[in-house]
Amino acid sequence: MNTPNIPVFDDVIAAAARIKGHAHRTPVMSSRTINDALGAEVFFKCENLQRMGAFKFRGAFNALSKFDETQRRAGVVTFSSGNHAQAIALSARLLGIPATIVMPHDAPAAKVAATRGYGGNVVIYDRYKEDREQIGRDLAEKHGLTLIPPYDHADVIAGQGTAALELFEEVGRLDALFTPLGGGGLLSGTALSTRTLAPRCKLYGVEPEAGNDGQRSFRSGSIVHIDTPKTIADGAQTQHLGNITFPIIRRDVDDILTATDAQLVECMRFFAERMKLIVEPTGCLGFAAARDMKGELQGKRVGIVISGGNVDIARFCSLLST
Amino acid sequence: MNTPNIPVFDDVIAAAARIKGHAHRTPVMSSRTINDALGAEVFFKCENLQRMGAFKFRGAFNALSKFDETQRRAGVVTFSSGNHAQAIALSARLLGIPATIVMPHDAPAAKVAATRGYGGNVVIYDRYKEDREQIGRDLAEKHGLTLIPPYDHADVIAGQGTAALELFEEVGRLDALFTPLGGGGLLSGTALSTRTLAPRCKLYGVEPEAGNDGQRSFRSGSIVHIDTPKTIADGAQTQHLGNITFPIIRRDVDDILTATDAQLVECMRFFAERMKLIVEPTGCLGFAAARDMKGELQGKRVGIVISGGNVDIARFCSLLST
Repeated sequence: MNTPNIPVFDDVIAAAARIKGHAHRTPVMSSRTINDALGAEVFFKCENLQRMGAFKFRGAFNALSKFDETQRRAGVVTFSSGNHAQAIALSARLLGIPATIVMPHDAPAAKVAATRGYGGNVVIYDRYKEDREQIGRDLAEKHGLTLIPPYDHADVIAGQGTAALELFEEVGRLDALFTPLGGGGLLSGTALSTRTLAPRCKLYGVEPEAGNDGQRSFRSGSIVHIDTPKTIADGAQTQHLGNITFPIIRRDVDDILTATDAQLVECMRFFAERMKLIVEPTGCLGFAAARDMKGELQGKRVGIVISGGNVDIARFCSLLST
Repeated sequence: MNTPNIPVFDDVIAAAARIKGHAHRTPVMSSRTINDALGAEVFFKCENLQRMGAFKFRGAFNALSKFDETQRRAGVVTFSSGNHAQAIALSARLLGIPATIVMPHDAPAAKVAATRGYGGNVVIYDRYKEDREQIGRDLAEKHGLTLIPPYDHADVIAGQGTAALELFEEVGRLDALFTPLGGGGLLSGTALSTRTLAPRCKLYGVEPEAGNDGQRSFRSGSIVHIDTPKTIADGAQTQHLGNITFPIIRRDVDDILTATDAQLVECMRFFAERMKLIVEPTGCLGFAAARDMKGELQGKRVGIVISGGNVDIARFCSLLST
C-alpha cells in the first residue's frame, strides 16, 4: 500500500479560498427549545442549505478546482449513488469539466435524474455482481479520467473541513462538536479544523447503530469492513472507513457514537416542526447523539453539523407518519 | 371614528432596537434554480425561521415592550387563532406580562396547546355565535387589560416593518418586493421601510385568490369586507384590512396580487425540495406571485418575504401528496 497523502489544516484554508463564491456560506442556527432541553448552547451548521443540498459540494468543488488543464479536458469519474454524485456533477458543470458517474442499477430514479440534470454522464452497474471501485478505476485508466472517490481523497477531505472552519469563525469557542460519519470525509476534515482552531473541543463522529464499523475501527485500531448496513441513513451506509480518513479520525477524534433509525426520525421531526428545516436521515446523526448525551453537555457550547437535506418529500412524509 | 395613529419609519427603527437580541435576525436565502428560472436575483427573507415560526413575534414583542408598569401588571389580551396568539403568549412570557388569548372553539388543538405552552391564558369563544373583537374589548375593560389586536395597531405594524428593514440592510437595492397580505400588518410595516430605504422599489402585497378583499379595497379606495375565505392560507383568512393598515397600503403599495391554493402548494413543494425549508401556505404567497410575474422581473433584484413556517407536519404532507 502506498503511504496515503494525509491532508493538513493548511489544505482546509486553501480549500476555503477555492470554494469561496461557489459554495454557500451556510447559516448557523439555534433553537431555544434545544438549548433549554440540553441546558447547553447549541449551534447547528446547516449544510442541508448548501448547494445541491449537502456538504459534499465543498469537497467535490475543491478537488475539481485543482485539476490541471489536461485533467480538465479529459474529465472526472466517480462512483456514488448519493450526494457525492450530484456534487461532482454540479462542480464539473460549473468548471466546464466532463463528468462520468458510476451509479448502481437500483439507485433512486430521482437521484439518477438529478445527476443527469447537472450534466453528468451516468454509467449504471449491477450492485450485486460488479465492483464500483473497479469500474471507476477502469474508466479512469481507459479514458484518462481522474478518479475522485466520495471520501478517501485529500482534496475531498480538505473541502469538507471548510464547514467546521466556518462554524468556528462564526461562533468561536466550542466545547463539543458532533458530525455524521459515513466514510469519514466530513469527520476527518472537521478534525483538521477542530484540532487547529479548538484543540480542547471534544469531537465526536456519529454513525448509524446498524453500521457501526467506524466505532469498531476506532476502538480496535484497524479498519473494520462490514456488509452494507440496513439503515434509513443512506448517506452513511458505507462499508468501511478509508485509508486516509481513518488515521486522521484515529488521531484527532474523541469518540465514535451511534444512533438508531428511530432516533433519527425523532430528530427529523424536531427539525421540521421546530426549526422548519428538511433534514435527511443521515443529517440527523450528530443531533441524535448530542440529545442522548444530554447530561454531559450541561453548560457547554455545542456544535452540530447537519450534513444534508436530500430526502425525497414522499419518503420524508412516510418516515414521519410512523 | 377616531383618527388612527399611523406609524412612520422612525417607529420601525425604534422597534428594531427594542426587539434586538430577542427576535432572530433571520437569514436571507437564495436559490440559483430560482434565479435561473426568473432571470432575476431573488432574495428570500426567511421569517419561517423567526422565533415561534413567524414574523408575528416582531410586532407582538415590540408592542408589549412599550407597556408601562401598570399595563405590564394588568396584562395583555388579544384575539387570534394563529401565529399572533403564539407571538403574544411568547412575548408576554419573556417580558413577565400575563396574557389572555381569545381563540375560537374550533381552533386546532395543537395551536391552543402551543399558546398554553407559552403560558397564555386561553379563553374559548364560539366562532359562529360570538364576536371575538367584542370579547377582547370586554375583557380589556373588565380587567384593565391592554388589547393588542393582530394587525391594526401602530406598534404591531412598526414591529413587522423590521423584517424588510433587515432585508434592505443585508442586500441593498431591490427593484421589487413581495410580501403576503392578510390584515396588512406585515405589508404596511414593510411599506414604511421600503418607502424610506428604497423609494423606487415596487412593492406588492399578495393575498389568496379566494379572499381578495385587499385587492378590491386597494383598487376601489375603501375597505371591502368579505366572509372568511376558503383557502389553505390560514394566516390570510382575514375578512378586511384595518383602519391603520389600509391608508398606508393605499399610499405606499404598488399593487395587490393574488395566488391560488394550487400555486401555494407548488411553492411549498419547491421550498421543501430545493431549499429544504418548511413554509406554511400563507408564507408562499409572495413567491407564488413573483413566479407568476416572471417576464416582468428579468434582470431585476427581487425580495420575497417568507412570512412563516407553522404548518402541522401531517397537514404539510397531506397538502404535498396531492
